[in-house]
Amino acid sequence: MAKKLVFGHKNPDTDTVASAMAASYLVNHAYGEDSQAMAQGEPNAETKFALAHFGLEALPVATAADTDEVYLVDHNEAAQSIDNLADVTVTGVYDHHKIDFKSNAPLWFINKPLGSVATILYYEFQQADVEIPAALAGMMASAIISDTLLLKSPTTTPQDQPALEALAKIAGIDDVNAYGLELLKAGTDLSSRSAKDLIDGDAKSFEMGGNTVRIGQVNTVDVDDVFARRDEIEAAINEEIAADGYDTFILVVTNILDSDSDILVLGQNQDKVEKAFNIELTDGRGSLPGVVSRKKQVVPPLTEAF
Amino acid sequence: MAKKLVFGHKNPDTDTVASAMAASYLVNHAYGEDSQAMAQGEPNAETKFALAHFGLEALPVATAADTDEVYLVDHNEAAQSIDNLADVTVTGVYDHHKIDFKSNAPLWFINKPLGSVATILYYEFQQADVEIPAALAGMMASAIISDTLLLKSPTTTPQDQPALEALAKIAGIDDVNAYGLELLKAGTDLSSRSAKDLIDGDAKSFEMGGNTVRIGQVNTVDVDDVFARRDEIEAAINEEIAADGYDTFILVVTNILDSDSDILVLGQNQDKVEKAFNIELTDGRGSLPGVVSRKKQVVPPLTEAF
Repeated sequence: MAKKLVFGHKNPDTDTVASAMAASYLVNHAYGEDSQAMAQGEPNAETKFALAHFGLEALPVATAADTDEVYLVDHNEAAQSIDNLADVTVTGVYDHHKIDFKSNAPLWFINKPLGSVATILYYEFQQADVEIPAALAGMMASAIISDTLLLKSPTTTPQDQPALEALAKIAGIDDVNAYGLELLKAGTDLSSRSAKDLIDGDAKSFEMGGNTVRIGQVNTVDVDDVFARRDEIEAAINEEIAADGYDTFILVVTNILDSDSDILVLGQNQDKVEKAFNIELTDGRGSLPGVVSRKKQVVPPLTEAF
Repeated sequence: MAKKLVFGHKNPDTDTVASAMAASYLVNHAYGEDSQAMAQGEPNAETKFALAHFGLEALPVATAADTDEVYLVDHNEAAQSIDNLADVTVTGVYDHHKIDFKSNAPLWFINKPLGSVATILYYEFQQADVEIPAALAGMMASAIISDTLLLKSPTTTPQDQPALEALAKIAGIDDVNAYGLELLKAGTDLSSRSAKDLIDGDAKSFEMGGNTVRIGQVNTVDVDDVFARRDEIEAAINEEIAADGYDTFILVVTNILDSDSDILVLGQNQDKVEKAFNIELTDGRGSLPGVVSRKKQVVPPLTEAF
């Protein structure tokens, strides 16, 4: 059987790397495939921490497939996928995002609204009765911790906690909370990242009442660390607003220890943002206690207010 | 929680009815939903036989949802779905067809290339650790038998046989083969169906090399029963060719006991059909030994030849 490649999304995070590893292992051991997990870029600081912790190498990097068939994990839309997706056959998809997908034939397409793709894959291993090696279980546990902020994000589902518990046990993680905080902190070393990288790394654009609203998010253990670099960040945001024509740019700076966020709002519509969250912005900055999820807690009230 | 409806595809067959029943039961018992299985039309003769055998009523019929949320089984494309699909939210999909689907949010979307959707749902029940009632298991076993022609169709996968065996056991079917033949025969009482219904019931159009090729399929236990009505059938086909502008019409008459088919070819391109199957047509009729699957054994060689 010809080799198949398993790809996560662009700008790989811990869930996309762990899920590529897990999906490849699953289809090789449960369905007789000969697949190789890949990444579309170098691991981020958090993923590097997890890889080192469990003694694993980073995945080979490629942004196109040199095989006829691929699996996709943690994404299903072409914009987030490999460059030559249109030229290859998608054999399977494991994902937890909204769907925009078309195929010419039936395939394995497992999409569930769970906290992480690693959670979905944990249950697929159970169903296929395939044992998970300890290091892989460690990466999958790290993915659940990362995507659910240690089960505290509102994206967390009832299925994530038992999966994390079982995977941590296989991986030999004695104190999930302690390991989880170490992992999340490893991902928040912002000092080495440029202002442009901070505002761009995770940013997405949304159309809201005729306005283009760009929303970026940065995780940290101290929001003041980020706002200490405000001049530099503000310059980078204003440059993007001018270059890309955004009406509003919102940077969500999330304290992963306290599960709170501060936002920095630049451009038009500051009044609408104030209305959305029922707060007052001071010099563009405001506090959103208890807010950690852009998808569940930031976008919906903004959409409403705009 | 507000009630949700579970819909199979238009022109319901045994797999779509059994899967609607099974998916509804699964989500109610595993995920706390309050759902109702529906059908987009009256059951066919085969499904009626299965319902009567297991003491079940036919599903309520509707072609639109009066709820905000629906589940879809055995289809995911709008053309085969309810009339107001665009106005409702799809909460989940269980299917085994090619995918053409777009959503605004993550959802349960379980698509696997297995012989029947009932097979997929059997494993979902296992994963969720929900017991399947005997009558429902009987319908699910009937669906596997129907879609795989008693595991003899080339659409059969390694997952179908163990699912059928387990479901038959729960349903108290002692002799799966004997029950399966009875069920399939019940679906082949063609005497009560009009010629137009026979050629239309299961027909699909395909674009092949600039030609519109219409391919219908009829299951029977004696192909001569069908060809005894050839004049009537030929008139109905020629009427459709004239009305709908098909270049070629192929009726595949499949003997489900022997797993062979005869074809009747009307319109243009008889030479291309002969080339596709390496046969000679006599007065438009030819034999295709071992051919039972339109999807796997009829369409691909025709596409090649055209």
